[in-house]
Amino acid sequence: MEESDIYYWKGVAVRMAEQVERAVSPLVGTEEAGEIIKMGADGTPTKLIDLVAEDEAVGVLESTGRPVTIISEEIGVLHINREGDEPGIIFVVDPLDGTSNAIRNIPFYGISVAVAERHPDGAAPTLKNVLMGFVKNFATGDLYWAIKGQGAFLNEKPISSSSQSSLDRTSLGAFIYGTRFRRVDSICRVIRRMRILGSVALELAYVASGSYDAFMDLRENLRIVDIAASKLIVEEAGGVVTNERGGEIDGLLNVKARTSLVAAGNLELHEKIMQTLEVI
Amino acid sequence: MEESDIYYWKGVAVRMAEQVERAVSPLVGTEEAGEIIKMGADGTPTKLIDLVAEDEAVGVLESTGRPVTIISEEIGVLHINREGDEPGIIFVVDPLDGTSNAIRNIPFYGISVAVAERHPDGAAPTLKNVLMGFVKNFATGDLYWAIKGQGAFLNEKPISSSSQSSLDRTSLGAFIYGTRFRRVDSICRVIRRMRILGSVALELAYVASGSYDAFMDLRENLRIVDIAASKLIVEEAGGVVTNERGGEIDGLLNVKARTSLVAAGNLELHEKIMQTLEVI
Repeated sequence: MEESDIYYWKGVAVRMAEQVERAVSPLVGTEEAGEIIKMGADGTPTKLIDLVAEDEAVGVLESTGRPVTIISEEIGVLHINREGDEPGIIFVVDPLDGTSNAIRNIPFYGISVAVAERHPDGAAPTLKNVLMGFVKNFATGDLYWAIKGQGAFLNEKPISSSSQSSLDRTSLGAFIYGTRFRRVDSICRVIRRMRILGSVALELAYVASGSYDAFMDLRENLRIVDIAASKLIVEEAGGVVTNERGGEIDGLLNVKARTSLVAAGNLELHEKIMQTLEVI
Repeated sequence: MEESDIYYWKGVAVRMAEQVERAVSPLVGTEEAGEIIKMGADGTPTKLIDLVAEDEAVGVLESTGRPVTIISEEIGVLHINREGDEPGIIFVVDPLDGTSNAIRNIPFYGISVAVAERHPDGAAPTLKNVLMGFVKNFATGDLYWAIKGQGAFLNEKPISSSSQSSLDRTSLGAFIYGTRFRRVDSICRVIRRMRILGSVALELAYVASGSYDAFMDLRENLRIVDIAASKLIVEEAGGVVTNERGGEIDGLLNVKARTSLVAAGNLELHEKIMQTLEVI
């Protein structure tokens, strides 16, 4: 992508975050926000606040007048301002990550936007095509972002991931309820501190900024589109992101693809987490 | 307590929350905040940000010129402006609950202030003596508070706890890492959603406001002083708070006393949680 295009689409992504934030803010903490309106493209129910967020995100792309594809939970894939071929730019958007926090006024919810470039040869786009990532916490206004090869930032300040490599001093974010609870028992016994905040995109951004030393989700149920932005942010901040077997996550950019995830601020800590998981 | 005294000491508690918030805000998200300065009265290390918060809290009470006792983690018990007998008013303060969140810039930390009246007969004060409770999230500015017999409030709005009584639709806050992990496994399997946010005082306030349906901490390690304010807020909002055996918590107001805790928005949900725990 040309420098001027990077600058242009970064501006669009930041504007999208601002406008979606403004659109959902009257609904935060209300019962109305949680009303189920329809079923999303991924087969899960869509709540009013999610729909409001997505409509606003689509509106921002329409207003550019430029051809662009949006991939999002509720609508699936939508080409906007299309002229002939499929648009070369793809916005992979979770308009509101942490919906249940937003409905209950827990200050931990926001948008995830990844900007990817389509292969000229028409190959299906994957996480490798993501060039920029933006994750914003609407409750605090903090924007975490990265451009491939140019580092990661919190607002305008460069960030780097944690250098903590001792498990017994690690702050770990994790989704552990529901399935395979016992498998992570061994981790829970040795770490310093655990959090479950309820927004994967923001919790990965915390690995990038060092607020967390590590994060994991072993449910094999994490949508690729929901980590498209934050995976790049973690990697640009110096962190490591793999699936639960330590392998590369390079999923297709569509609403069906799912994965498990283990992220750490550094390779040494990542290896220790993998060893602890393998014992089980 | 006279109506005019309630009004006066409520003003002092609110001012304490504001001034401590202002004092700690430059330290939030900094490494300096986490430096260990000394050992607290309860035998745990004191970090710089905790000390700054406590100094400010003591300063607010000194500036009243009135006799008052403060009970707090780092200093233990301190009589301020004492004139003869032990002061009749006791402030039970956790100047900064969620310290590790504050240090790591996770928007979930704040103050807990309970105001209690000493028995005229000199009996050791317990949770029963607490007349008012105040819990403020410094990251959002939200103040949860209650006056005994007068209901609970979020800022100026009356709040009531959740009426959700189905476990499979329950959002539960819980401290579960470290010890007795397996014991809560049965709960984790059936609930809708779990959070670990890292501030007991604020998480109990969430039970009062309905942001959580329930909260539990089974570590038997919870300080009575840290729940003195929020237990009253939950009860005034219509919720139920017991220890893990379903019994009344009426601990002494001192920095050593510890307990387990199960709180729920309503009695029906509380009973279901107790039944699930008893199976183990």
